[in-house]
Amino acid sequence: MRYVISVWTEDNPGVLCRIAGLIFRRGYNVESLSVGRINGSGISRFTIVFEGDEGVLKQVTSQLKKLVEVIAVEELTNGGFVERELSLIKVESKAGERPEVFQLADVFRAHVIDVGEEGIVVEVTGDKDKINACINAFKPYGIKELACSGSVAMKRVGFNGGRK
Amino acid sequence: MRYVISVWTEDNPGVLCRIAGLIFRRGYNVESLSVGRINGSGISRFTIVFEGDEGVLKQVTSQLKKLVEVIAVEELTNGGFVERELSLIKVESKAGERPEVFQLADVFRAHVIDVGEEGIVVEVTGDKDKINACINAFKPYGIKELACSGSVAMKRVGFNGGRK
Repeated sequence: MRYVISVWTEDNPGVLCRIAGLIFRRGYNVESLSVGRINGSGISRFTIVFEGDEGVLKQVTSQLKKLVEVIAVEELTNGGFVERELSLIKVESKAGERPEVFQLADVFRAHVIDVGEEGIVVEVTGDKDKINACINAFKPYGIKELACSGSVAMKRVGFNGGRK
Repeated sequence: MRYVISVWTEDNPGVLCRIAGLIFRRGYNVESLSVGRINGSGISRFTIVFEGDEGVLKQVTSQLKKLVEVIAVEELTNGGFVERELSLIKVESKAGERPEVFQLADVFRAHVIDVGEEGIVVEVTGDKDKINACINAFKPYGIKELACSGSVAMKRVGFNGGRK
């Protein structure tokens, strides 16, 4: 099963290192890790995606909670959540090909954020499947460079944890 | 000065830990770190943003290059580059406030990706300043939750490293 968890921590230089150490040294199958500061609050928020069974989930969350910098851990998979990634894709496109490439970007609601002689850069957001579909669609033109953020996720609005 | 670097590494469970260890243990002033896998290539790409002088930049890049998993390091600040972050913002909005909140989202070209009784979730991309402006604009309604990716960056198309 694929699990997605949010982890709130103190915004402390060592914490990324300790969290990375904890989840990677033990050989968990981590698909993605992303971290962003929550402005002005002194708090960082991690989104960690990994594969495993329920035992692994329990282990990961209980070990994370033992770290002094960790404020809270929330499992998102057990209920509705939204998940997005950001990708920048540099696509080769000669002058004649541009309209096609622009239209393709439109189909994926991607934004063209740079255009040059040798190609364009598009910014696309979505879940993993959409990002992969978008990358595959641009492949025939030639992808010169790719940069992806990890998954960023949060509970849906009004989700009550499955309680009725 | 604010530096932005891209680092390509082998997609190896220990590499995030080693990179985090290297840049945080030495006390560099890191603003953001993000990492994403490049699908099917066995390669991960990091975007690291930090403050410092040219000496710090040289130290960071030379130490990164010493790690066996590191394939390449590229400094982006020395020339044109595009930089984007992704934020999910959960905004309180009662029924009557919704049109206002939706319009505000439009102004920032943010997408409403979830709506519930208690509020909405918007997805917004941009550079740090735009994201902060967007968060500040939603603050009066009440922000219930925030999740940000780190910066993702790449060289502009056709940028030739300052050579003429």
